[in-house]
Amino acid sequence: MAPAAGRFITFEGGEGGGKTTQLARLAEDLRAAGHAVLTTREPGGSPGAEEIRRLLVTGEAGRWDARTEALLHMAARRDHLVRVVWPALAEGKVVLCDRFLDSTRAYQGYGHGLGRDWVDRLASVVIGDFAPDLTLILDLDPAQGLARAAGRGDAETRYETLADAFHQRVREGFHAIAKAEPGRCRLIDSSQPKERVAALIAGQVRALLAASPQAVRTP
Amino acid sequence: MAPAAGRFITFEGGEGGGKTTQLARLAEDLRAAGHAVLTTREPGGSPGAEEIRRLLVTGEAGRWDARTEALLHMAARRDHLVRVVWPALAEGKVVLCDRFLDSTRAYQGYGHGLGRDWVDRLASVVIGDFAPDLTLILDLDPAQGLARAAGRGDAETRYETLADAFHQRVREGFHAIAKAEPGRCRLIDSSQPKERVAALIAGQVRALLAASPQAVRTP
Repeated sequence: MAPAAGRFITFEGGEGGGKTTQLARLAEDLRAAGHAVLTTREPGGSPGAEEIRRLLVTGEAGRWDARTEALLHMAARRDHLVRVVWPALAEGKVVLCDRFLDSTRAYQGYGHGLGRDWVDRLASVVIGDFAPDLTLILDLDPAQGLARAAGRGDAETRYETLADAFHQRVREGFHAIAKAEPGRCRLIDSSQPKERVAALIAGQVRALLAASPQAVRTP
Repeated sequence: MAPAAGRFITFEGGEGGGKTTQLARLAEDLRAAGHAVLTTREPGGSPGAEEIRRLLVTGEAGRWDARTEALLHMAARRDHLVRVVWPALAEGKVVLCDRFLDSTRAYQGYGHGLGRDWVDRLASVVIGDFAPDLTLILDLDPAQGLARAAGRGDAETRYETLADAFHQRVREGFHAIAKAEPGRCRLIDSSQPKERVAALIAGQVRALLAASPQAVRTP
């Protein structure tokens, strides 16, 4: 018999869409309800992957070509999965992750124009058909999102310095992903009040957790 | 008409096989004969790839799982190709590279047991069918090679700390690669005197350069 499996829930979307805030809030609610929760993020989430993150989120926008950048994201992701996510899922935890493969699809596949097919071929080699149980895409007009992100004033601005057209393609990418995988993805209008967004997320997660647990899908 | 193309020659083999020494000597000879030569190395060879190299050649042996490690090598390789190797080949240079894809095949594919097929699927996604014109594999008993490498006393010892059985599998990998691609690869017994090894290499490179130039194969 397969051991009880955890659930893997990812938060996706462009800059400033409220992923980090909503993820923290959901974690708090789930813990209050007695769930074992692990919160993490990409790129990063493990000591090795955080070192790779440093190469990705700082420096000039043109520092890496798009394929190199996608490879670095996949290397960080693989480390994060092996060291953190898969062990936590095997222990039955609910894992909440700030960005995952859909960000590589949207940013490198659509934003940088590599194509989603190229990213999917790479992902297939590296992580097989492992996928989140639920993906919450916080959708927001890039102009509004970038203004919010700029207000944070942190040093990890490499992606934010890319052109508006890039961020528009990223948004279109997330829309296309949500449309292609309606079973896994929920597109949530993040221009709504925070309370309303949180309630929508909570409803989706309740439905997921009420469904019968799946077998562990760790390779 | 395609522009005159350079030649891409790689040096491969286990630790302490004399790659670096023989590469420098060949470069000197080729330059004396009037060729435009670029010498470079992997992982590294470009500013971004050298940063990735630091993550690969230092630290504990178990720092990365084998697939993550292969991805980091491919990310560094892609950066090196895009920024350095492909532009030099387009300019008609003879590019001499200390390690390339065969090292990923031998070290991660055979040494770490990922299989050559897995490495080749990854390489196909990332660099298509780009390959060296000539690969010189300097073959040496790992015990002898590691003793030589230890004599260098440098800090990049992560691979050298792996078990003897690992290095034996790496050697078998290089043998298998040479056997599978006899048109591209030359297996050279590196336990011979340096002068003899240099003469064998010079002969192979003369034959390559005498052949009619190929079209540029840069994607």
